[in-house]
Amino acid sequence: MRSLKLLLAYDGTSYCGWQVQARDPSIQAALERALKAVTGEETRATASGRTDAGVHALGQVVSLATKSQHTVAVLQRALNANLPDDIRVLQVTEALSGFHAIRDAVSKRYRYVIQDGGVPDVFARRYCWHLPTKLDDEAMGMAASRLVGKHDFASFQAAGSERATTVRTIHEFTVGRRRSPLAEQTVIEVSADGFLYNMVRNLVGTLVDVGRGVQSPDWPVQVLAARDRKQAGATAPARGLFLVGVEY
Amino acid sequence: MRSLKLLLAYDGTSYCGWQVQARDPSIQAALERALKAVTGEETRATASGRTDAGVHALGQVVSLATKSQHTVAVLQRALNANLPDDIRVLQVTEALSGFHAIRDAVSKRYRYVIQDGGVPDVFARRYCWHLPTKLDDEAMGMAASRLVGKHDFASFQAAGSERATTVRTIHEFTVGRRRSPLAEQTVIEVSADGFLYNMVRNLVGTLVDVGRGVQSPDWPVQVLAARDRKQAGATAPARGLFLVGVEY
Repeated sequence: MRSLKLLLAYDGTSYCGWQVQARDPSIQAALERALKAVTGEETRATASGRTDAGVHALGQVVSLATKSQHTVAVLQRALNANLPDDIRVLQVTEALSGFHAIRDAVSKRYRYVIQDGGVPDVFARRYCWHLPTKLDDEAMGMAASRLVGKHDFASFQAAGSERATTVRTIHEFTVGRRRSPLAEQTVIEVSADGFLYNMVRNLVGTLVDVGRGVQSPDWPVQVLAARDRKQAGATAPARGLFLVGVEY
Repeated sequence: MRSLKLLLAYDGTSYCGWQVQARDPSIQAALERALKAVTGEETRATASGRTDAGVHALGQVVSLATKSQHTVAVLQRALNANLPDDIRVLQVTEALSGFHAIRDAVSKRYRYVIQDGGVPDVFARRYCWHLPTKLDDEAMGMAASRLVGKHDFASFQAAGSERATTVRTIHEFTVGRRRSPLAEQTVIEVSADGFLYNMVRNLVGTLVDVGRGVQSPDWPVQVLAARDRKQAGATAPARGLFLVGVEY
């Protein structure tokens, strides 16, 4: 068997998320169907992490094993010809035998896009969270920088999820501003050695309370120290979230 | 009656264009339906120009007359509440009595976006023309600059359209390059005192032949001089075209 690494971009709007589900269309099912069409094999595709319904990817990484003898270039072209146009294979590379997209991941980077203020941008409506008023992105950036480092992020984990440990290390956590042709956007970027379930969206919801002036830039650190999900802000909607990339 | 000027943005993907048609959804029908819901009146909305099926707008201008006594702010909010989320009213302003979005227009600006090279960007797939190879945007810019001025653009008019005159003045015509998170784009911008039917898309198709190296940067001027539609390049697809704005 040959181990392959796929780099994928997808618009998550029309999907129930990465993982195969009984009725709803998933990214994984679409990819495995394309693999079957190209190689004739029933292949299990493993992503670096299960993105939720409506979450997008600029650089999802997938591992799989195949007996196919096609070159990586042929595989990429053939897979794209068999995938819907909201999922694209950006790259196919040979991987070391046994490469595993979840286990071997060293760090991941997410981006969250908020349109703050103005009329919702029709071209970004599937790709951002629209808030009616301007956010204080400097205060948000200050708050974000204080969460960098190795901490117990239990406060930012979705209620009911169970992980062996809730300690993670955030390497970088920044807040910037950019303009689209129709709107201003606050862009949050965070990289870490791993993320708890809904962690990015809960961090974003918490930072937004700071950006709105409802809470001070010191507050997220207090939320962190509480280790209690009920202390944090609301969960930001899925459509503003992008998996940017994964490092191995 | 009160004269109003509306500034509209829309994602044209799901529409047969601006103009009301018997069966297919149009921007005009959606807007007139929202006007009816808000004012109770049957209002005729006139746009600066009829954008075609799949063409987008960052700043379409619409004129209309109403007896409604709502403030412009209330009208904007109420219209947006009654419009689908791919059409947004960016602004409502009082206009001089009899203001007419077509007749009073002094100049218009269009943008055309091409992703040249790479795997199609899933987030821009509705908003650009994807071409498999890099374009020579410098050669295209040179060719474009030679078309600036007052000329007979008959060669770039859609076959079968009839206008009193095919002379128009291009004020500015530039070609640039920008990056989206997943791709490089060649961006063409053109402003003129008016455009013939399909003129921008025919100009773009012609410039692309230059960008591909199939034709020299001198060629579009020769096409112009021929005053013959058959001389020009192919018509670029609608999805890359944006009406940027209209001046009065």
